[in-house]
Amino acid sequence: MGQNLALNIAEKGFPISVYNRTTSKVDETVQRAKAEGNLPVYGFHDPASFVNSIQKPRVVIMLVKAGAPVDQTIATLAAHLEQGDCIIDGGNEWYENTERREKAMEERGLLYLGMGVSGGEEGARNGPSLMPGGSFEAYKYIEDIVLKVAAQVPDSGPCVTYVGKGGSGNFVKMVHNGIEYGDMQLIAEAYDVLKSVGKLTNSELHQVFSEWNKGELLSFLIEITADIFSIKDDQGDGYLVDKVLDKTGMKGTGKWTVQQAAELSVAAPTIEASLDSRFLSGLKDERVEASKIFQGDYFTGLPVDKAQLIEDVRQALYASKICSYAQGMNIIKAKSSEKGWDLNLGELARIWKGGCIIRAIFLDRIKKAYDRNPNLANLLVDPEFAHEIMDRQAAWRRVVCLAINNGVSTPGMSASLAYFDSYRRDRLPANLVQAQRDYFGAHTYERVDMPGSFHTEWFKTARNNSQN
Amino acid sequence: MGQNLALNIAEKGFPISVYNRTTSKVDETVQRAKAEGNLPVYGFHDPASFVNSIQKPRVVIMLVKAGAPVDQTIATLAAHLEQGDCIIDGGNEWYENTERREKAMEERGLLYLGMGVSGGEEGARNGPSLMPGGSFEAYKYIEDIVLKVAAQVPDSGPCVTYVGKGGSGNFVKMVHNGIEYGDMQLIAEAYDVLKSVGKLTNSELHQVFSEWNKGELLSFLIEITADIFSIKDDQGDGYLVDKVLDKTGMKGTGKWTVQQAAELSVAAPTIEASLDSRFLSGLKDERVEASKIFQGDYFTGLPVDKAQLIEDVRQALYASKICSYAQGMNIIKAKSSEKGWDLNLGELARIWKGGCIIRAIFLDRIKKAYDRNPNLANLLVDPEFAHEIMDRQAAWRRVVCLAINNGVSTPGMSASLAYFDSYRRDRLPANLVQAQRDYFGAHTYERVDMPGSFHTEWFKTARNNSQN
Repeated sequence: MGQNLALNIAEKGFPISVYNRTTSKVDETVQRAKAEGNLPVYGFHDPASFVNSIQKPRVVIMLVKAGAPVDQTIATLAAHLEQGDCIIDGGNEWYENTERREKAMEERGLLYLGMGVSGGEEGARNGPSLMPGGSFEAYKYIEDIVLKVAAQVPDSGPCVTYVGKGGSGNFVKMVHNGIEYGDMQLIAEAYDVLKSVGKLTNSELHQVFSEWNKGELLSFLIEITADIFSIKDDQGDGYLVDKVLDKTGMKGTGKWTVQQAAELSVAAPTIEASLDSRFLSGLKDERVEASKIFQGDYFTGLPVDKAQLIEDVRQALYASKICSYAQGMNIIKAKSSEKGWDLNLGELARIWKGGCIIRAIFLDRIKKAYDRNPNLANLLVDPEFAHEIMDRQAAWRRVVCLAINNGVSTPGMSASLAYFDSYRRDRLPANLVQAQRDYFGAHTYERVDMPGSFHTEWFKTARNNSQN
Repeated sequence: MGQNLALNIAEKGFPISVYNRTTSKVDETVQRAKAEGNLPVYGFHDPASFVNSIQKPRVVIMLVKAGAPVDQTIATLAAHLEQGDCIIDGGNEWYENTERREKAMEERGLLYLGMGVSGGEEGARNGPSLMPGGSFEAYKYIEDIVLKVAAQVPDSGPCVTYVGKGGSGNFVKMVHNGIEYGDMQLIAEAYDVLKSVGKLTNSELHQVFSEWNKGELLSFLIEITADIFSIKDDQGDGYLVDKVLDKTGMKGTGKWTVQQAAELSVAAPTIEASLDSRFLSGLKDERVEASKIFQGDYFTGLPVDKAQLIEDVRQALYASKICSYAQGMNIIKAKSSEKGWDLNLGELARIWKGGCIIRAIFLDRIKKAYDRNPNLANLLVDPEFAHEIMDRQAAWRRVVCLAINNGVSTPGMSASLAYFDSYRRDRLPANLVQAQRDYFGAHTYERVDMPGSFHTEWFKTARNNSQN
């Protein structure tokens, strides 16, 4: 990733020095730079000459594993840097680590940025989405560069902005990844319903996802999903996707997103469902055992109208996706408010329109929703999204019920639907929960018809009633 | 709570000294002790004389707010305690704080226990469920007392056991509370479906829950729910439950449970759904606004067979509850394994059978499941629970689909059902997610048909395909 980003920067006309503890990687980068058009990349085999080669005020971008390796790299670099120089961490770092380091660097007269980078290897080379947060002064050092290096989206510009103070760049990247988990899970569920209930072949799935990628679902993840269904297994018969083991790895940002949602009192059921699905996917041996115990015909076998099913699933996927993004944006909003970051949600949607894994035409609608109302309580109540959901809810309910009746789990779509049905109800059964809490713990309750805090001796009153 | 626990201890024949910074509370406790049968409770107005009044080795139980107040109380007490004395924290403390304090006390020659106490005010007075963890030596000091003070359950003994080392007592109490969140949410959903779809009156709901409390759902929470539906509003017409505002408070242990589940890679969707439901209940104003935007007739209005609905909901509640407990027990199991606590899950189910908020006849089945197989991977695959779920799944699917088609959210029941349907499937659509991860991030994948780690150039292969 670091190599690709360096080549990208050099290609935009900015000479760049590169350094890695493994010197062969340095040489490899320089050779690639030559091969890819004599790009101005200069390799160094020791940190001192690397740092000294950079024009002051120096800017160094680190791309190393989050955690201790970042601290080690900072220690190595800082020994050679001078007042006013700047370090940028481009990894998936926990935002509090960035805040701690920013403070420590400030004491040494150095500037610091935590910059989320999304787009994988390909994005780093050809235009990633960049989410820099921390010192604004440091951002100004690199603004010229990142504006050119980032993905360029027609009509909405480069996919980079100064996110905000402190660890906000890392935090926003973390939630981006949480949203990415949600998108991937919802697509997997769409696939599962179409395959398990609709009996679509891989070839049909390729057609369906290709078709979907021409409409409102147009996005990188739908596009690569279509690609995946087109690939034959080069080790045997059939399609490769069927040979891939159903175990999903993960790297921690989805987990952090779920933990932060809980910390901030923000409901994020779709993102939680996608994390849980990864956990359950990992229990392959247990699942195989359980499948033997719970044998039986879960599939109703009733005929389904394929065309109708495909259209229903498309709508269910879209509606579920709105709920998932609503949750992600509200996590960012709550954190921004807690930390005083003053983040611009519409601007974040804009810089996700290109370069990153969740890039999608859909993000333009989110940007517009926040343009219409920067203080939108929830994406669901934006007039356009509200309208879209109303239009799709019948299909959405059909798909989830069809899946349930066929024994196919759609945890993400179900969670999204329950989120919608909870959020849009003026009266939830939470009155009972609060009455229970007052009953056993004297936690008190409010009333619908008068202000104040109330406590009832429920036990005594009930016993008196039953004696009358 | 502290007062009630002191009276409980004194009543069991153990003389007890009491101290509180607010001296009037001390006097009040002494007076109550007199009034409730001249119980041996001795009040003190300063910490020195309080500590000196206790027989060595001294044991002091603190019941103060978790966090800083605990540290302050320890500092006050430790100034007067001597080597070999013991401090017990009976609050809902974060387990790592207990581990930190245990170490600090050890350096001063003092013993320390973190003891979860469940049962509310009433339980503390008449028999709580006690979950002591930490120094085994300290547990031995108090064993005689806690065995008598704890709730006594016929055929299974006092609701206390030495949980394990370190912060295990607090951790287990935390998960107990997470499970309690799940139980309360599932009951609220049962209420919602019966009321909103089945159109049951409060009087009918009282009858239904009273009836349910005679069978497999027999539990404290079902019992108090039946009570709640019997209580008329003394401030106006109708039933009190309808006047209670639908906003649920919380105190943090549910949040911690969800965060720990994520940390431990354990899927806990039902507990997450109950936490999210509390968060969404808190957004009352937003919900009222959203309900105006999403107006429309969500209720299908199709006639429902009331008797059938009641029986279906009962079965759905029971099946959902199994999934929720499976998640909670697996969080404990994962933590026990991580920390080397060697916790006995069956024994934990036993001490929850009385005294605590989740006390239920159901816990006996859990105890038996772990007696049959202490290494059970998941409660779902215990032969008895598996059988019970199979019997109830048709009703369960009917209830969730009915709710969805009526626009009533059942996030907990849906999450439980999706958990079951994911766990019992040998093949999940996680193969697609892993293929996507390999496509954009070169994260590699495993295959179903051969060992090893594989990477495919998905993009290039797909493009080559499309050119052929």
